[in-house]
Amino acid sequence: MTGSLVVVGTGPGRAELMTPATAAAVARATDLVGYGPYLDRIPATRPDQCRHASDNRVELDRARHALSLAAAGRHVAVVSGGDPGVFAMAAAVFEAVEAGDPVWRTLDIRVEPGVTAMLAAAAEVGAPLGGDFCAISLSDNLKAWTTIERRLAAAAEADFVIALYNPASKARPHQLGDALELLRSKKKAETPVLFIRAAGTTDTKVVATTLGVADASVADMRTLVIIGASTTRQVGRWIYTPRGEREVS
Amino acid sequence: MTGSLVVVGTGPGRAELMTPATAAAVARATDLVGYGPYLDRIPATRPDQCRHASDNRVELDRARHALSLAAAGRHVAVVSGGDPGVFAMAAAVFEAVEAGDPVWRTLDIRVEPGVTAMLAAAAEVGAPLGGDFCAISLSDNLKAWTTIERRLAAAAEADFVIALYNPASKARPHQLGDALELLRSKKKAETPVLFIRAAGTTDTKVVATTLGVADASVADMRTLVIIGASTTRQVGRWIYTPRGEREVS
Repeated sequence: MTGSLVVVGTGPGRAELMTPATAAAVARATDLVGYGPYLDRIPATRPDQCRHASDNRVELDRARHALSLAAAGRHVAVVSGGDPGVFAMAAAVFEAVEAGDPVWRTLDIRVEPGVTAMLAAAAEVGAPLGGDFCAISLSDNLKAWTTIERRLAAAAEADFVIALYNPASKARPHQLGDALELLRSKKKAETPVLFIRAAGTTDTKVVATTLGVADASVADMRTLVIIGASTTRQVGRWIYTPRGEREVS
Repeated sequence: MTGSLVVVGTGPGRAELMTPATAAAVARATDLVGYGPYLDRIPATRPDQCRHASDNRVELDRARHALSLAAAGRHVAVVSGGDPGVFAMAAAVFEAVEAGDPVWRTLDIRVEPGVTAMLAAAAEVGAPLGGDFCAISLSDNLKAWTTIERRLAAAAEADFVIALYNPASKARPHQLGDALELLRSKKKAETPVLFIRAAGTTDTKVVATTLGVADASVADMRTLVIIGASTTRQVGRWIYTPRGEREVS
């Protein structure tokens, strides 16, 4: 019995932002494993397909469950939102492989890329990621807050555009405020800051402000925060970062 | 006459990695503007649709042309590869808006997100972007090489996974070598380095090596280079970066 496991991302939410490759991969699967709201984005096409919905906080358990199913000969799709390789399930699957049954290393495991949240968020407002940029998860469930602070400081030093994933949750209400405070000490007050909630869905909400007055309480679990580089600016109703430092001729 | 302009990305190459939203946007357009090989990825569905193919080096001219067409009432799709907001046409369009005819600021301009090269490249090898990461274009056509060096140094300091776009071209043969040399002075020799050519196409080629021995001449215009963080590692035949710093329990 030869099973398989594919890790996919549904994209940010709207069905039209899921790639056909991902739609085909989930249609082939005998078992779908994922956080309930992400599984709900997958149309029910096969009556024989089994859905294993779980809570959002148990990535490793979910990864192990998926690997066990594949080892038993099932064809499993692990379903993330966005792109599965960016702050999502693909890394958790390989963590589980590394720590788990040696036979899992011989499984047919693939990853399908998708549209990650920062790309959908950027597209909502123009092209704020038009220059060099970085992506940082503000969650300190698995890393030290001092590591996050070091990365924020380096990102300011490098003048990267900064995309912040997981900016806030009920368990971590102060972190985005602390991050903005750190950045205020290193970047200009007029730096554009964008709070983009539920990008790539039908209820996107954008708050465009500046670093000097940005209010962290605007963000929740579904918000992606983008903090501009020194060149990020407004033109018309759009925010964008030019491709380089030199003036447009 | 009310025209419109949408900036789209075809994804990395395979048709199944272009989002349905992008396919619908290009199908609605009266005019497609883009670099020839990207336009070739768009199926010919409408005989009345006009294709304006151009060279790869003239982003601003192409953006101005597209804006002029939209201002004249046409429905224009500007076609990039990958995601249009990442080292692609969206920023060029807004640069042209800023420097151009004031009426362009009143146009209906939208951006559709897509699968950018680093996501497709990461998916080919596992989950190397599983932790915090940055994306840097090595092209110094529009920014100083010293800026790029500053960003590489900060990325090493922050222990970001580093994705390098535009690592090499005929006009810039030495830059990737210089970048790797800089990183060798700041990161461990055993840091994983991935050269992923033509990710998300049918002729992907991956070279997995380490920073100590990485040979810059492996890269060309179609290569995406990923340099690991301190935690990036191999398991089985995959390369991945764990989500955090703590050990898997």
